[in-house]
Amino acid sequence: MKAAIVGVTGYTGIELVRLIHQHPSLTLGTLHSHSMHKNSISELYPHLQQLCEQEVEAYDAEKIMKNNDIVFFATPSGISKDLVHEFVAQDFPVIDLSGDLRLKDLESYQKWYKKDPTTQDIVDKAIYALPEFSAIKGNLLSNPGCYATAAILSLVPVLKEQLIDLDTIILDGKSGLSGAGKQLSDSSHYVTVDENMTMYKLNQHQHIPEIIQFLQTFDSSLSTIQFTTSLIPIKRGIFMTLYAKIKPNVTSEQIQQAFDKHYQSKPFVRVQPTGCLPELRQVTGTNFCDIGFGVNEENQTLTVVAVIDNLMKGAAGQAIQNFNLWAGLEETCGLTQVPLFP
Amino acid sequence: MKAAIVGVTGYTGIELVRLIHQHPSLTLGTLHSHSMHKNSISELYPHLQQLCEQEVEAYDAEKIMKNNDIVFFATPSGISKDLVHEFVAQDFPVIDLSGDLRLKDLESYQKWYKKDPTTQDIVDKAIYALPEFSAIKGNLLSNPGCYATAAILSLVPVLKEQLIDLDTIILDGKSGLSGAGKQLSDSSHYVTVDENMTMYKLNQHQHIPEIIQFLQTFDSSLSTIQFTTSLIPIKRGIFMTLYAKIKPNVTSEQIQQAFDKHYQSKPFVRVQPTGCLPELRQVTGTNFCDIGFGVNEENQTLTVVAVIDNLMKGAAGQAIQNFNLWAGLEETCGLTQVPLFP
Amino acid sequence: MKAAIVGVTGYTGIELVRLIHQHPSLTLGTLHSHSMHKNSISELYPHLQQLCEQEVEAYDAEKIMKNNDIVFFATPSGISKDLVHEFVAQDFPVIDLSGDLRLKDLESYQKWYKKDPTTQDIVDKAIYALPEFSAIKGNLLSNPGCYATAAILSLVPVLKEQLIDLDTIILDGKSGLSGAGKQLSDSSHYVTVDENMTMYKLNQHQHIPEIIQFLQTFDSSLSTIQFTTSLIPIKRGIFMTLYAKIKPNVTSEQIQQAFDKHYQSKPFVRVQPTGCLPELRQVTGTNFCDIGFGVNEENQTLTVVAVIDNLMKGAAGQAIQNFNLWAGLEETCGLTQVPLFP
Amino acid sequence: MKAAIVGVTGYTGIELVRLIHQHPSLTLGTLHSHSMHKNSISELYPHLQQLCEQEVEAYDAEKIMKNNDIVFFATPSGISKDLVHEFVAQDFPVIDLSGDLRLKDLESYQKWYKKDPTTQDIVDKAIYALPEFSAIKGNLLSNPGCYATAAILSLVPVLKEQLIDLDTIILDGKSGLSGAGKQLSDSSHYVTVDENMTMYKLNQHQHIPEIIQFLQTFDSSLSTIQFTTSLIPIKRGIFMTLYAKIKPNVTSEQIQQAFDKHYQSKPFVRVQPTGCLPELRQVTGTNFCDIGFGVNEENQTLTVVAVIDNLMKGAAGQAIQNFNLWAGLEETCGLTQVPLFP
Repeated sequence: MKAAIVGVTGYTGIELVRLIHQHPSLTLGTLHSHSMHKNSISELYPHLQQLCEQEVEAYDAEKIMKNNDIVFFATPSGISKDLVHEFVAQDFPVIDLSGDLRLKDLESYQKWYKKDPTTQDIVDKAIYALPEFSAIKGNLLSNPGCYATAAILSLVPVLKEQLIDLDTIILDGKSGLSGAGKQLSDSSHYVTVDENMTMYKLNQHQHIPEIIQFLQTFDSSLSTIQFTTSLIPIKRGIFMTLYAKIKPNVTSEQIQQAFDKHYQSKPFVRVQPTGCLPELRQVTGTNFCDIGFGVNEENQTLTVVAVIDNLMKGAAGQAIQNFNLWAGLEETCGLTQVPLFP
Repeated sequence: MKAAIVGVTGYTGIELVRLIHQHPSLTLGTLHSHSMHKNSISELYPHLQQLCEQEVEAYDAEKIMKNNDIVFFATPSGISKDLVHEFVAQDFPVIDLSGDLRLKDLESYQKWYKKDPTTQDIVDKAIYALPEFSAIKGNLLSNPGCYATAAILSLVPVLKEQLIDLDTIILDGKSGLSGAGKQLSDSSHYVTVDENMTMYKLNQHQHIPEIIQFLQTFDSSLSTIQFTTSLIPIKRGIFMTLYAKIKPNVTSEQIQQAFDKHYQSKPFVRVQPTGCLPELRQVTGTNFCDIGFGVNEENQTLTVVAVIDNLMKGAAGQAIQNFNLWAGLEETCGLTQVPLFP
Repeated sequence: MKAAIVGVTGYTGIELVRLIHQHPSLTLGTLHSHSMHKNSISELYPHLQQLCEQEVEAYDAEKIMKNNDIVFFATPSGISKDLVHEFVAQDFPVIDLSGDLRLKDLESYQKWYKKDPTTQDIVDKAIYALPEFSAIKGNLLSNPGCYATAAILSLVPVLKEQLIDLDTIILDGKSGLSGAGKQLSDSSHYVTVDENMTMYKLNQHQHIPEIIQFLQTFDSSLSTIQFTTSLIPIKRGIFMTLYAKIKPNVTSEQIQQAFDKHYQSKPFVRVQPTGCLPELRQVTGTNFCDIGFGVNEENQTLTVVAVIDNLMKGAAGQAIQNFNLWAGLEETCGLTQVPLFP
Repeated sequence: MKAAIVGVTGYTGIELVRLIHQHPSLTLGTLHSHSMHKNSISELYPHLQQLCEQEVEAYDAEKIMKNNDIVFFATPSGISKDLVHEFVAQDFPVIDLSGDLRLKDLESYQKWYKKDPTTQDIVDKAIYALPEFSAIKGNLLSNPGCYATAAILSLVPVLKEQLIDLDTIILDGKSGLSGAGKQLSDSSHYVTVDENMTMYKLNQHQHIPEIIQFLQTFDSSLSTIQFTTSLIPIKRGIFMTLYAKIKPNVTSEQIQQAFDKHYQSKPFVRVQPTGCLPELRQVTGTNFCDIGFGVNEENQTLTVVAVIDNLMKGAAGQAIQNFNLWAGLEETCGLTQVPLFP
């Protein structure tokens, strides 16, 4: 099968190139960019010289459908919501990595993304494709956000097993700079980021409604979460910390069992041994979400640490995982390479 | 007045050298180190060439008292608890920057520091010298811990004004590597730290009892806090995030007023304008603690961000601030230089 | 005396604020920016809250001259060449930190800076103010470039003492990102810089003609140098390596003597003990240029390492040093603080 | 075929694990460590959980030969020189990544490594396995040093084509910290490395004799080179700069042709288009050596920049390349994955 990538010159697009290049059942079809076409991808990204030298083309939906079996949208939010119609009309398979199709409520999209939404039929059709907890089916998959993936994977087991008080949930996420994309701003200048840490979009991050919407499918009584996001001086990775009060008499063993139960058959979630917290670099370059936790018995507080690579399990890796499931392949197909370390 | 520094070759010791060098009313007396004496300090630290070339001497209590007016202990925990007796016996002024004299309960020291404590009369005599909330008097000052300083400054105004539920307090601290000192370990190797983030000592950090002990002086009903610490790839700085549920009907304005009220006359706490969160680098090299906050009205959660330089307001800077108050000088004396930036 | 700063919002401008703030004989006059005026400087740079809260004003030459005793131009190249005329006409003291007044040959400026030059009378009047080797006099001082400062200080002693073959000079300079200024570009994005090193402007850096022009004042037979510049992932600092063949029978002792002779009375050049090379961080935040060297007797090659802080000895610090000399003050006035370390 | 790794817990050993894991014709045999055996490799390196969980065993030559087809020594210098005898005696295939077998002259080893050498018959038998210029044959391959690889690949084409003056060669190498290995020292502490650059082992680096020895096979008149090494704050990568005077009338075109001629059939050397210099990150995680150059016609100086990943083309990647050639496989087998980027 051949895959087209729209928005190939962004960090997520180039990560898809890497993953598809090494995938045994998927090959690179056509590559597309609005702004940087007419170059080979290796002129834009010299690390690809001799490895991948395809031309980057202008966007052309007809050509994409003609020459590929599936299309990945690795575009910033606000693009695929309009472009996707043509593909849906012909039932052509789409995996959208942007935020455009995640929210079922159009007003919510308008509120959090400050953009006009796509149409209701599109979002109704789109599957929120978090493969550990969603059935991956149909030809319109909406890939979750990076923070949202780490948050949801931290929470669902203890939420489903009713081990925590829902109104005490606090999610404190830290991200590397690739999560903010390639666009230039004062806040991504090297001199600003280096030796610094900043919290941004407090109570305003667009992943908040996506997390709540998905968690409500497990417990409809949940209506709000506390969620904060910060930038730390690294390239890749999300370090998500969840705090919540455990319910009376809940034990550390029950927490461990909850995680084990929900993830023992999930190849990309590695629950750490009791008492061990994962460090960020152990998932860099992989599709894993590694999870560890601790319980403070003095104040009945659960601390969960979940780490992912924002471009992998938080974006392109999860998209390939979704592709595998969609295509009926092994879920881990093309995703089990030992990562670069250190 | 002349100051001796014991443990001058550590990061905190060398920061004291910097601050005393620029202080208008305090000069460097004798410098001491157990392991690295018989060199000039500028041989050990070439940045000091031509600026400060004093010899580092072996430790000698008699000589220290003879040649100086005050002694700063910048030693790791476990040293000053024994050495301090000789100075106390002669009522010689001591500012101890280690954790040895902070806890009034000797068993608690034993439990959290895994070392034999000093004697009860010493800890009874020692003032926990957080100058925004302590009266700085007497000749035995115990300088607070770096995380503890940021935690306490975040909390006291909203705690004293009874704006938050005490049992919902969560403190999530991130620190640069200088906070862990100079000793070599796998966890301080460049290759381990770079592009990584790790949480450590979950529910076991020795600053926990110090924070609780001090907060209890404002509200004795507080008995526990949730407190976590992580390392991020920077040299200097603590980024402390406090989460707590606000009490019913508490408004953002009340929070702002609480901070303003308690800090308007405090020269080293800069409360940010409403809606502004401080970034870490704005305090690097300074003795400031900058504080900002946000209230999430949907879930009644207060988020406070407090940033300090762990070697300044978290250690040497606060020690000089304490010295100023102890000596009857202006609190800001020698501490108002514009910092290096960027 | 009061100093105005034009271009105060750049890295060099803000470093001038720091230095003037701590200077015993110079105070901040008016602050100017084309693009960011009407704010207080502490709104733009929150680290300055409560330390320096002056308003940033639009540029106004008349007002500057009326309210100040001297003006520092910390503007990018291409600005002061036009603005300076008004000040020169009234013989108002100017220290220009940009490249606009450094080259005596107008065509050379045109060639290397790709901009129209100022007028011949202006460049004739301007002193190339490298205070270790220039007489600082007159009211128009042109502050040397950062790379040029490190290069010249590495070279002059061995060149004047005729210890090296002039046609074998190679200068290999590495710089932190603050050297490239605040403007946004792909090459200053955090994700581009982190874990990377790049060489740029090979044989095209605009400091080349400035270095040659100044070295020719010591040996007119020198007509070319090999000079390269690279970016490394740090904020501040230049690490300059000089290679040259020593003349027959020249010894390591002669090299050491040459450096000692030329710098023993120079307070800001710290020649390292024989066999010791300086590391970059030992000058961060200081006005020092630290120099060490080694001789390879097998191939008669001299290696010199010179390190400076590009914003200090490479820009603002040197400008204050020049001010001190111009004003008849002690050369080191306001420049001998112990720097932040680590 | 199965490969044993001795010294698997070092950075090079763990990189061999990564490469062998993804190799189509080689699988991991037994893993060995002197100090850290009795654990699974994934306990030591949590990133390997579920990917590679083999036990690390104590060293046992007999067992290695019994259970594997080849052994890789990824040990520090000073180990394999003794251990290798047993394998050579049985003509068991060995690829040694340490410096122990590189120098043909035993006194030179003694001088540069400060250790007793192995025996002459061993070094006589060992092939210096730089596959672009060596015939890879026999059962004892000595993998070149990281700096040496970058230096030699920069130099050979222009040296063989007699385009440069041999006595003007200067090699200025910069390396990330993984090149210095895992051992703890002040110089690898995060606080020392961050925001710093240091030159080390000036005229004393143990790769010097290895480079000269190999270059002499192309031009015996070469007897010395100027070679310096520095540490920059990154994890991985070598940025090697070569300077040399070109011979009279040599043109930039001739340089380009020399590189093209020697590398057009070499899959792991990517000569950049004329005028383009490679940046370090474009080879991170790959086995490529990317080379670009510029000629300064004013002073007849050639500047060549060669970048490699020190753990790949500088160590483990090159070892696999050598294995491929030794085993009669395609040279690029298992080495053409698109690397992690950014």
